[in-house]
Amino acid sequence: MNKYEEKTISSKSIYEGKIISLRVDDVKLPDGNLAKRELVKHPGAVATIPITADGKIVLVKQYRKALNRTIIEIPAGRMEIGEAPLVTAKRELEEETGYGASKVTYIQSFATSPGFADEVIHLYVAEELYAIENPEEGDEDEFIELVEVTVEEAEKLVVSGEIYDAKTAFAILYAKFELKK
Amino acid sequence: MNKYEEKTISSKSIYEGKIISLRVDDVKLPDGNLAKRELVKHPGAVATIPITADGKIVLVKQYRKALNRTIIEIPAGRMEIGEAPLVTAKRELEEETGYGASKVTYIQSFATSPGFADEVIHLYVAEELYAIENPEEGDEDEFIELVEVTVEEAEKLVVSGEIYDAKTAFAILYAKFELKK
Repeated sequence: MNKYEEKTISSKSIYEGKIISLRVDDVKLPDGNLAKRELVKHPGAVATIPITADGKIVLVKQYRKALNRTIIEIPAGRMEIGEAPLVTAKRELEEETGYGASKVTYIQSFATSPGFADEVIHLYVAEELYAIENPEEGDEDEFIELVEVTVEEAEKLVVSGEIYDAKTAFAILYAKFELKK
Repeated sequence: MNKYEEKTISSKSIYEGKIISLRVDDVKLPDGNLAKRELVKHPGAVATIPITADGKIVLVKQYRKALNRTIIEIPAGRMEIGEAPLVTAKRELEEETGYGASKVTYIQSFATSPGFADEVIHLYVAEELYAIENPEEGDEDEFIELVEVTVEEAEKLVVSGEIYDAKTAFAILYAKFELKK
């Protein structure tokens, strides 16, 4: 099956952090040669495409230290240990947008950076939204602003670079073509 | 402008690797509180959606140590220092598929994991493909198999989980809807 599998010869833990950890593995390649692999471990995340009754997408604007700038994304968050993705989806939607959703549908999961990280995002569509009166607050170190846009407006935010991440780029194409059936 | 900006108080280098590096920053949040940010630095990458004359997508199958499995992706690779994205696009296409392309069109750039990494992928469509007689070989630690599929076949590979990364998920939606005009 895995004729290209890389067998781990040794593994060295470099860092164990709050969110990610880093290790460096020595691996044996299919041709018998050795190589190093720098590998980031991440707990995984869930993202939702929240669609309002009038067909708008609910997005969140937040500063991303890794990019040193503010970008606009679909709501997303890390899974807590043992948390089912659907539970994370609803929790993050409430924390980040104040919305609940009567209809939450799984779309697809994907790895974000398979070259160096194991992060996987599970993607959902959230429909039949309703405002939650006293929504749970999210992480105390997150500062977020809500943005509700049509698909056409979202596409302009891609062109202007304000939408700038893979999951949201996917979400907009998906909302444009797959949800308008 | 950046009212949510997080000001760096101190920055500690944890690891300087061959491909990625890791640092941990102490930042001051907009409310004055402090937080830690674990940040992976990556040189950036380019990916292409290669479309054959009969409308198939050229994909590459490779083992990804970070995921511990073989997945099918659009051709992609890291930018070398000072290399323009379009040059990377053509180089990686040749190295990974043996194809040259007379028409290479920029689509979009996106960050893959803005929560913890600065990796950005620049995405291109490669058309008018031709086989290169003695193609440049790629990284000596890469073992790759070519797969040419229709969009419908690609969608089945998503369902079966063999296609499992964000850039390829985006590429398939793009090829399905935006290229069939």
